[in-house]
Amino acid sequence: MYKLIEVNTGVCSAQGFFSDGISAGLKADNAKDMAFIYSNKECEIASVFTTNKMTAAPIRHFRAKGEFKTNFVLINAKNANAMTGKEGIKDIDTILSTLPTELINPVMSSTGVIGVRLPQEKIIAGTKLFDLSKKEPNAAASAIMTTDSFSKQKAFRVELEDGSNFSIGAMAKGAGMINPAMATMLCFITTDADVSKEEMQEILDSVTVTTFNAASVDGDTSTNDTVMLLSNKTSGVHNREAFKVALEKIMLFLAREMVRDGEGATKLVTYKVTGALNNQEAEVVAKALSNSLLVKTALYGEDPNWGRIASTVGASGVAADEETLSISFNDLCVYEKGKLLFDEKMEEEASKIMKLSEFTISCDLGLSDGKFTSFGCDLGYEYIKINADYRT
Amino acid sequence: MYKLIEVNTGVCSAQGFFSDGISAGLKADNAKDMAFIYSNKECEIASVFTTNKMTAAPIRHFRAKGEFKTNFVLINAKNANAMTGKEGIKDIDTILSTLPTELINPVMSSTGVIGVRLPQEKIIAGTKLFDLSKKEPNAAASAIMTTDSFSKQKAFRVELEDGSNFSIGAMAKGAGMINPAMATMLCFITTDADVSKEEMQEILDSVTVTTFNAASVDGDTSTNDTVMLLSNKTSGVHNREAFKVALEKIMLFLAREMVRDGEGATKLVTYKVTGALNNQEAEVVAKALSNSLLVKTALYGEDPNWGRIASTVGASGVAADEETLSISFNDLCVYEKGKLLFDEKMEEEASKIMKLSEFTISCDLGLSDGKFTSFGCDLGYEYIKINADYRT
Repeated sequence: MYKLIEVNTGVCSAQGFFSDGISAGLKADNAKDMAFIYSNKECEIASVFTTNKMTAAPIRHFRAKGEFKTNFVLINAKNANAMTGKEGIKDIDTILSTLPTELINPVMSSTGVIGVRLPQEKIIAGTKLFDLSKKEPNAAASAIMTTDSFSKQKAFRVELEDGSNFSIGAMAKGAGMINPAMATMLCFITTDADVSKEEMQEILDSVTVTTFNAASVDGDTSTNDTVMLLSNKTSGVHNREAFKVALEKIMLFLAREMVRDGEGATKLVTYKVTGALNNQEAEVVAKALSNSLLVKTALYGEDPNWGRIASTVGASGVAADEETLSISFNDLCVYEKGKLLFDEKMEEEASKIMKLSEFTISCDLGLSDGKFTSFGCDLGYEYIKINADYRT
Repeated sequence: MYKLIEVNTGVCSAQGFFSDGISAGLKADNAKDMAFIYSNKECEIASVFTTNKMTAAPIRHFRAKGEFKTNFVLINAKNANAMTGKEGIKDIDTILSTLPTELINPVMSSTGVIGVRLPQEKIIAGTKLFDLSKKEPNAAASAIMTTDSFSKQKAFRVELEDGSNFSIGAMAKGAGMINPAMATMLCFITTDADVSKEEMQEILDSVTVTTFNAASVDGDTSTNDTVMLLSNKTSGVHNREAFKVALEKIMLFLAREMVRDGEGATKLVTYKVTGALNNQEAEVVAKALSNSLLVKTALYGEDPNWGRIASTVGASGVAADEETLSISFNDLCVYEKGKLLFDEKMEEEASKIMKLSEFTISCDLGLSDGKFTSFGCDLGYEYIKINADYRT
């Protein structure tokens, strides 16, 4: 048995972790735009990166190092250091070489515009403002935001039956280019639990499938997506089950918050697909629904247009049949195995559900027991506004 | 040798074909909403239908008839007769049974809202208004429109060297749910060329790949997509090459017009992908580009954001490398094999191209000789407006 106690100290929740955000002049108006995470002991690292073939320089830089431990992560917003070729890698080397030499294998993570070299001087000047004794998780979480409208953090202290405890905390940014295959999202998780690199990686991989990879804002997968999990093992406490549950709660919360804060999003919708031939087919349907423009615009219009749900299921390419399909908005079944249930009264009830800021659309394909749950948002004018002229 | 002479008589261009559109009260304001195509001789039929598993009733009805010839197609807008189960099929039987008995195997085609039974009485009353001696292709082309802002027709008289000739003409509707795998689009093509059913089908299948299936408005594939090609062989003239070229010109024109008239679209963009490992991978990239929300909103913002193009190529899952990739807007190369070419002067030039209503984005993957060309449009406020509350 174990207890999860929520704390509000983000990536500084675990013992020995420090973090802060500062302004290096990358964003306008002196907004915070650079952050660090520092541990007073070196950390094991588990990570998940984008599947995009145009992998950004910081990820290629990280991978080229092979196996290593670190105690320092430098993060900048506003410039993704993507499509910058060998120069992009060199820029990271240059920047990291100016950091205090006592830092162990410092790594860098970036988010922002693609195809522009990092403003090295500003970033190097920014690192001089870092105070490694600071525990300012809120400042760090704000600094890594791009088009996010609020910062995203979650942390738990995990108390075990024997009185021992460990902590795990995270910050994330999301908003655009969010897609089931990892998106312009960065997430940094710190823990003092005593978990090995292998165990962390295994748990991180499995939890990613149902959390970040089940979340979609716009179906575009970015060049920079990163989830980094750092463990300094300071607590000396090991409990795989409790660690996995805490990590899953954190990642699920952050994935949902990212979708809720999707560019221009006004609704968080859970797509619960059941009855598919197998879990893979259920996943295809759940992601087709969360990515369909016609579904997303109907959500924005608060229009209970179940026909578009059905059409999207049919278009997804998996086994499906209108005679076995059922569709519900929350607990209201609007279409059941070939029967048209929709009348004026039901439309009224369904419309009420569509006005909620959070609800579930369930699709039972009625074929077998494959299931998957994804998260999506609506798409409205604000998304267009944000994305029609992002760079300027 | 042969000559293609464009004519403006749409589906009535070929000998023996008649067509008209009338108002049956399905659309508001007495707008035309029902059309017919009639041939005074029975026709061979070639067809391509949606890949959506929730196939609409008219398509299932058509398929259930097996091999047949027809001389009459009844088309209605405003109601798709999709997700209507066995009742939807029965409704078609009822409606067709009220038509004059001298018509040969009449078929029906529908477009509009999903999940509502056809208003049988209105439709039957509408058919009583049909005058089979009318040649009003413009009225028919208007009647089949849903959210289209203009009607779409194209026709040629094809003159052969020996003085003989045949004609081929078409009408189409598009606008939303347009996707590479056939979309809420209907297209009816009539010809008096002497082509066999097998030959027509073979040519239609091959031409569909590079025309309608290369066009995307929103990546959603509808339940009702239909391309129907009717030949009454009245001209007695057979020339496979001339027929194929004319059909291809017609379908390519209509596919591009559909995208140009995509819901809320202000630009028609051609994505020319070359240098992929093979044609299949090129097709994946070309379609990923025409479907990417981030690319589409950048187009709408007239923002030459080539980084999103690169990121979408990378996210498409095919073999790609930033060191071999090149990207051009029309003839302006903005990124070449790992070299960042973009500066202020180039941005100015690129911005001018982005303001055009029609231009080409080329991506050379630089790996091998695979190629594919797709067509897409931008996505702006108007798309949201149209789709946020389509049913009401």
